[in-house]
Amino acid sequence: MVTYFEDLPAGEVGTLGTYRMTEDEIIEFAGQYDPLPIHTDPEFARGSEHGGLIASGFHTFSAVNSVVTEGFKRDLAVVAGLGIDGLRWYAPVRPGEELTVELTVADARRSESDPSRGIYRLVVTALDDEGERVISYADSGLIRTRGTGDP
Amino acid sequence: MVTYFEDLPAGEVGTLGTYRMTEDEIIEFAGQYDPLPIHTDPEFARGSEHGGLIASGFHTFSAVNSVVTEGFKRDLAVVAGLGIDGLRWYAPVRPGEELTVELTVADARRSESDPSRGIYRLVVTALDDEGERVISYADSGLIRTRGTGDP
Repeated sequence: MVTYFEDLPAGEVGTLGTYRMTEDEIIEFAGQYDPLPIHTDPEFARGSEHGGLIASGFHTFSAVNSVVTEGFKRDLAVVAGLGIDGLRWYAPVRPGEELTVELTVADARRSESDPSRGIYRLVVTALDDEGERVISYADSGLIRTRGTGDP
Repeated sequence: MVTYFEDLPAGEVGTLGTYRMTEDEIIEFAGQYDPLPIHTDPEFARGSEHGGLIASGFHTFSAVNSVVTEGFKRDLAVVAGLGIDGLRWYAPVRPGEELTVELTVADARRSESDPSRGIYRLVVTALDDEGERVISYADSGLIRTRGTGDP
């Protein structure tokens, strides 16, 4: 079932799924994309103010997006991603924590320059094991309308 | 050499480095963090409007950050990342393209609530092989000031 512009739900969608952050993956991701010892070196991290490894915020962002893609964006008739706004990291994410991902469709409007396209704005939030918010952001993209002959 | 708040350069820093986007890494990253066939399935992608695989925007963002971390943030006395603003994807990134990453220190000010900390705002832009801008965003974080006794 493809979700076109006209089929987008309005408002809160709810919980999409969860993502468990393992120590191995925290170290591997950061080694490639955010090589700082607080994310890659458990011994250094133990002696730091955090008292142990914390995930790269870029990793948390990508992990949360995987839940959004699998639980929502995969069915959308997306033309292209446009951008991310207001990304905030509120608290460190530690090995073993399971993130719960919540979604709201904050806005959906027809493109003024091309009425065969719509623009969506999703607000994504993730909570940790204690229900504390660890990240939120808005994800905007271009989506097909029905009956445009596009796949 | 640790770069404290007082040591931050003002304005344009210039080119930090480059990152080559390979097909294998595009497929691997997207398989884990953005599983859409336009990023993971070369055959599907050939039949799409893009005519071939394109990198996940989340991958482009992480890859560009790796250059920012290695070329600049690794030396900063960072306390914590705060957030990302105004991330825009301007053009698709294809396998084999080399991204050139440019940095500007857009703002650096002392924290009002804690004068022993500063807040920086980096503006990051990446260009493709043709010099076309493919992504830009602002990256904000908290940084130590000198002589606070912190490591």
